[in-house]
Amino acid sequence: MEKIKPRTLSGFMELLPGPQMQMNRIMDIISSSYALFGYTPLDTPLIEASEILLAKGGGETEKQIYRFTKGDTDLSLRFDLTVPLAKYVSLHAGELAFPFRRYQIGKVYRGERAQRGRFREFYQADIDVIGDGQLDIANDAEIPATIYTVFSRLGLRRFQIRINNRKVLTGFYAMLGLTEKSGDIMRTVDKLEKIGADKVRAILVDDLALTGEQADDILRFIAIRGTNGEVLAALETYRGRNGTFDEGLDELATVARYLGGFGVPEENFAVDLTIARGLDYYTGTVYETALLDHPEIGSVCSGGRYDDLAGFYTDRKLPGVGISIGLTRLFYVLGEQGMLNGEASTAPADTLILPMTGDLSAAVALSTELRARGLRTMLYTEAKKFKAKMAYADKLGVPFVLFLGEDEIAAGVVSCKNMKTGEQEKLSNAEAAERIAAYVAQQRSLPPIVEK
Amino acid sequence: MEKIKPRTLSGFMELLPGPQMQMNRIMDIISSSYALFGYTPLDTPLIEASEILLAKGGGETEKQIYRFTKGDTDLSLRFDLTVPLAKYVSLHAGELAFPFRRYQIGKVYRGERAQRGRFREFYQADIDVIGDGQLDIANDAEIPATIYTVFSRLGLRRFQIRINNRKVLTGFYAMLGLTEKSGDIMRTVDKLEKIGADKVRAILVDDLALTGEQADDILRFIAIRGTNGEVLAALETYRGRNGTFDEGLDELATVARYLGGFGVPEENFAVDLTIARGLDYYTGTVYETALLDHPEIGSVCSGGRYDDLAGFYTDRKLPGVGISIGLTRLFYVLGEQGMLNGEASTAPADTLILPMTGDLSAAVALSTELRARGLRTMLYTEAKKFKAKMAYADKLGVPFVLFLGEDEIAAGVVSCKNMKTGEQEKLSNAEAAERIAAYVAQQRSLPPIVEK
Repeated sequence: MEKIKPRTLSGFMELLPGPQMQMNRIMDIISSSYALFGYTPLDTPLIEASEILLAKGGGETEKQIYRFTKGDTDLSLRFDLTVPLAKYVSLHAGELAFPFRRYQIGKVYRGERAQRGRFREFYQADIDVIGDGQLDIANDAEIPATIYTVFSRLGLRRFQIRINNRKVLTGFYAMLGLTEKSGDIMRTVDKLEKIGADKVRAILVDDLALTGEQADDILRFIAIRGTNGEVLAALETYRGRNGTFDEGLDELATVARYLGGFGVPEENFAVDLTIARGLDYYTGTVYETALLDHPEIGSVCSGGRYDDLAGFYTDRKLPGVGISIGLTRLFYVLGEQGMLNGEASTAPADTLILPMTGDLSAAVALSTELRARGLRTMLYTEAKKFKAKMAYADKLGVPFVLFLGEDEIAAGVVSCKNMKTGEQEKLSNAEAAERIAAYVAQQRSLPPIVEK
Repeated sequence: MEKIKPRTLSGFMELLPGPQMQMNRIMDIISSSYALFGYTPLDTPLIEASEILLAKGGGETEKQIYRFTKGDTDLSLRFDLTVPLAKYVSLHAGELAFPFRRYQIGKVYRGERAQRGRFREFYQADIDVIGDGQLDIANDAEIPATIYTVFSRLGLRRFQIRINNRKVLTGFYAMLGLTEKSGDIMRTVDKLEKIGADKVRAILVDDLALTGEQADDILRFIAIRGTNGEVLAALETYRGRNGTFDEGLDELATVARYLGGFGVPEENFAVDLTIARGLDYYTGTVYETALLDHPEIGSVCSGGRYDDLAGFYTDRKLPGVGISIGLTRLFYVLGEQGMLNGEASTAPADTLILPMTGDLSAAVALSTELRARGLRTMLYTEAKKFKAKMAYADKLGVPFVLFLGEDEIAAGVVSCKNMKTGEQEKLSNAEAAERIAAYVAQQRSLPPIVEK
């Protein structure tokens, strides 16, 4: 028969079993952390009617969308989890309790130009809180507190959640009489880290026709640095000149204050006036998250406050605040940086039973006993030579091998080999199970990510 | 602004938060049970090149496929998890350890005619074991043992995994000189439960041109009933007349014997000669699973042994055995039948903190403490009236509400209300946490499914 060469599409992450275990562990920690904060899990379809997904229009995104017809229906694959959330909340509003807090970890699709580290199918891990008409500012602090919990539990320490408020920025630009240009200015200032202050100033003056003085005022403003207290104090000196600015400053101060109460240490969040987020729909708090030792990879978790989640579907005003971890890209980067914890086992089982007899009855019974004790137990079934059996154990990286031959069966014991130490002992089933369980418990305490 | 009416495509399951929690609980139990047996989790792309997915040709399936082009690439959404597995194993064979055991729970797509209970996007939850060249028959027993564990842990008791072996059937038809017609005969016999013995006989005689005697022999054969021991004993009376039959009978007897060792009670599996599975690619053991009180819904979990997983991609012979739970349909049916356990909480949090002060600092600190203790804690943030706050708690179904007003803050306590009993007490944070944790532990022991 003629063969078709198997392949996976470029831009689609397909992991080998070991890395997949690492990815799953990370996803488990993200979802359990999200759940800890009372977000409810959602799972919306990957396909939506195109008119729904594109209600807002798309611009750059629209070109990237996977769009097709089936029968006479115009369909698209979701390109983020926010538009499906907007649809969900407006469709089911009557049945939801507000504030509605949900998390969703799911694949989204964007037909980006294929290149290393860019994915066309990738996971986003989102949380959002949606209010009915209004939503308290405390939520803007709880969102980054959730992310702090996620990142800490993953094993990260050297990260910083950077927080700003769009009202502070728009209020500031209003003070300078630059309200109409504020969108363009923010998009320019957003590039500060990438292109540097000189180039930002050049764009402001040459392209946006600001005076040199205005450009310098802006650069001085966004250069405000220091502890969160110092930055907030510096902002206080602008108070009283613009209502929007004052409102934004109050919000920023409240968020910073509650963040402490949520247990987030100072070193993991920073009020940072350079953060603006390019997207127009953020209206208040905005977030970015940097891995401090890897500034080159940019923000790994971003979001913000928006006034109106679902204006395209409903007249109901639904303000919200949310954040999204670009999970597939983050996982890819962590792998590239060698930050996935090699001490954490990626074996599909805690123990592998290697029967040394033709009949497998005793091995089958042992597997059943170990599984009843909660141990992930693999039973080797093939009639191969000893060497092949051991090679199998090695390749899988199982921590414990249990040999079961005629002698062991007769004596009611197993030969338990610790594959790391090489130590081998005859033990009762219960003793072997205890030894393995102790290892599993110790493994569970290992974070999936390590910083070097 | 003109609104677009939000909607979800028909044939796409989109759950409200409560049912979604039930679904997630079921998925968690399935995946942890699969993991217990040493299957490794995989997560392959939802999109594949059409030439890969359709390598085998499709027939009926091909018409249902979601197929489209992006740029100049011909793409399709996966319609099962088996073809992607075949691709994965042949693509990565050099890096895998055989037998390769994997589980995958993922969405697949089939553009079926929309009707109640039929889904175009649905979850399958598959396990497969793939051998390199050969694969021991013990695996054919471990597969249904895994399913037994899954179903039992879900709370099901009244189910039966029905097992047969295609070699027994083909061997039997060879004895009757009907080898060439055996495929058609098996497809006909497969309909026995649906259309009854008389109609099966009519098709065999009228359409397939069997003699009346041959038809009666077949009906007598597939009418063999009794305990597994009795059925196997009845089959022994045919031994020695056909090599394939004898081989199949040996396999069937071994599977039945090991199933006991895997802890599967007699009442949950049955050797059933009427099970054939329509698909041609099964070559040995075949499985179906019935919910005994709901025969009308057909098999909820089916699969079998195949000789050659990936013949379209590779010369390497990869025999395997696997089974698939049609999860979305199963969940739908369980809901329809009222079998989802109403005692199991579907609240997004174990407790809801209702602050009774304008400043939320104390409530924020309490939420942090409870989360550190592992309790899913929701913080109510809005400045609403008491009645609205309680309505929120009711709607979410949170089991415990913690009131935190000035009195409580001053006294260093919380007012803890058990929402089920209505009982309310002032407790220290630690006491409240213990009370909630006890409830959570009790909840964890409740299965997601109940039989009536």
